[in-house]
Amino acid sequence: MQMLDLVQRRKREGKDTIMLCAGQPSTGAPSQALDAVSQVLYDDTLGYTEVVGDRELREIIATWHSDTYGVDTKADNVIITTGSSGGFVNAFIACLDAGDTVAISRPGYPAYRNILEALGANIVDMVCDQSTRFQPTADMLDELQPNAVMITSPGNPTGTIIDPEELERIASWCDANNAWLISDEDYHGMSFGRPEATARQFSSNAIVVGTLSKYYSMTGWRVGWLILPDALLESVENLQASLALCAPAVSQVAAKGAFTDEARTTLDAYVDDYRAVREVFINELPKIGLGTFADPDGGLYLWLDVSEYTQDSEAWCHKLVEDIGVAFAPGVDFDPVNGNTWVRLSLCSTPELAREACARLDEYLNN
Amino acid sequence: MQMLDLVQRRKREGKDTIMLCAGQPSTGAPSQALDAVSQVLYDDTLGYTEVVGDRELREIIATWHSDTYGVDTKADNVIITTGSSGGFVNAFIACLDAGDTVAISRPGYPAYRNILEALGANIVDMVCDQSTRFQPTADMLDELQPNAVMITSPGNPTGTIIDPEELERIASWCDANNAWLISDEDYHGMSFGRPEATARQFSSNAIVVGTLSKYYSMTGWRVGWLILPDALLESVENLQASLALCAPAVSQVAAKGAFTDEARTTLDAYVDDYRAVREVFINELPKIGLGTFADPDGGLYLWLDVSEYTQDSEAWCHKLVEDIGVAFAPGVDFDPVNGNTWVRLSLCSTPELAREACARLDEYLNN
Repeated sequence: MQMLDLVQRRKREGKDTIMLCAGQPSTGAPSQALDAVSQVLYDDTLGYTEVVGDRELREIIATWHSDTYGVDTKADNVIITTGSSGGFVNAFIACLDAGDTVAISRPGYPAYRNILEALGANIVDMVCDQSTRFQPTADMLDELQPNAVMITSPGNPTGTIIDPEELERIASWCDANNAWLISDEDYHGMSFGRPEATARQFSSNAIVVGTLSKYYSMTGWRVGWLILPDALLESVENLQASLALCAPAVSQVAAKGAFTDEARTTLDAYVDDYRAVREVFINELPKIGLGTFADPDGGLYLWLDVSEYTQDSEAWCHKLVEDIGVAFAPGVDFDPVNGNTWVRLSLCSTPELAREACARLDEYLNN
Repeated sequence: MQMLDLVQRRKREGKDTIMLCAGQPSTGAPSQALDAVSQVLYDDTLGYTEVVGDRELREIIATWHSDTYGVDTKADNVIITTGSSGGFVNAFIACLDAGDTVAISRPGYPAYRNILEALGANIVDMVCDQSTRFQPTADMLDELQPNAVMITSPGNPTGTIIDPEELERIASWCDANNAWLISDEDYHGMSFGRPEATARQFSSNAIVVGTLSKYYSMTGWRVGWLILPDALLESVENLQASLALCAPAVSQVAAKGAFTDEARTTLDAYVDDYRAVREVFINELPKIGLGTFADPDGGLYLWLDVSEYTQDSEAWCHKLVEDIGVAFAPGVDFDPVNGNTWVRLSLCSTPELAREACARLDEYLNN
């Protein structure tokens, strides 16, 4: 957050900044989502929906999930949440008993760690590096013996995708060891080529988390979903009734518009834009001496080794934004142990700005 | 929830039901809120707002709070939350350490108990009855010695308002005993005559929770706020970043429209409607042998003693809806110990329907 604050302050001061620190598409909702809102705004009271979400939206998501991955997902197993944030909180509380251990990837999305700490859970790290393309493997779980396993593919901050075969091994380990598998599939729909599998292809016990904030380009609307095993439906419904009541009604209306073929045409073009930014980075960064990074298979980020230049990624990012107006996210936010020599670059930009950022970096680091 | 499900099922089956079980205004957002959305829908990307909420909305709420209660509330101390639900979760986690004890009113809003149980907090009950107009007193705290005190005025399910003098005593007790005071002011703006005080008139350490869901008639939009002491600002901001990211952007736009004088004219008229329903109940219920209830000072509910007819409020409510199509909320939902001889009636209805409900009850109970 501090980087975002810094960028906002610079914006207010009229200072130009190439913002590569946020995982937020600069685009808004597809027009079909806005049209859906516009059509009901003055005619629907937009009161509480059912706790588990609008039935029609749950059916739409179940059909999309079934068709996309060749699974049989029922609307009854889909619960609409307030962003995937609401999904994580529900899932963690529903799955974990006092003293339970959760395995999370390091580097990884900081909110998992923060939420789990706020809930008093025991966290064990699946330490991921280039040797496993920055993703956990089933082999890691044997040693850690967690009660729940959190995975994210495409990853944040790494953009790498777990191979379907490895995902199957992880799901099997969880089933064999009576552990919950929570699969954050927030970045699905944004692959640059590798196949994306859902955890529910390999286990009907898996918990899938999804969101409108990434592929669907609807961050501020705060709609996500959980696809749950039968065993968790009642407890998650009860939790959501107390913790959230329901996801925002107006956003659930918008969501129905976003799950249309017309909207997907727009949204797929955004993925092409991220792909173009990725191309610039993977071509330009090695030329300026920054050749060690996780090659993004999908998602919105590139995880870059800057160990040659700093041992304090936060200070370095602050200096970079002040000195050359280029804002990265400090790696330490994603990996509290080894992240001080890494930064995360966002693909939510344009090829032109990405090229300009690389040029400024080159000038700064090499001259 | 079960009563709502029952009512929904009856609706689908085409069975008429007088729905007096939900605390949801049947009205939608004031038109000024909808106009605010309509104006930006296609022009604003509606991405994430600041974690703490849209600055302009925070300033509007700070000004409203200062002007309404004669206090000096700064925008910096206002954090926009995802409904008051999001506010409760943030506040509880920020205030409570492991092993801490929270005092809550019984009867009271079930979500407090559910959230606190999900978070593993220790709960102690402030047992409230007619002797204190169903509200806690500072005297109760001496015995309980809690680390945090949760109050709700106007109350749910009782509609009673804590006198400002007693609220001051409670706030002073909390300050003297180093306990957090969390004041749920969700039903403010809906008094039928008694003065409403904010806890922050009596202590700058108090935490105030507010919402758009009640007076503002915007349940499904999921916007609330916290007014926080300085000491909690950073921790709540960090929590919200992990637990929610931000309240829905489109709803924050709508909220600005709801905080206008024009909207208040509409919303005050809704309060007159609740007052008219209350009048029907307090006149008619004694005539049909249901003369023991908490006389609602404000809010949306009437808490009714039905001990002459049942010792199992849930079964009784289910039977009532099936037999005469009148839906109340079972008292046991609000008071797990003594609530089986009580029910909660909602004022979110019309005088005509309230009269019809009383007539059906009279026929059912007395003939």
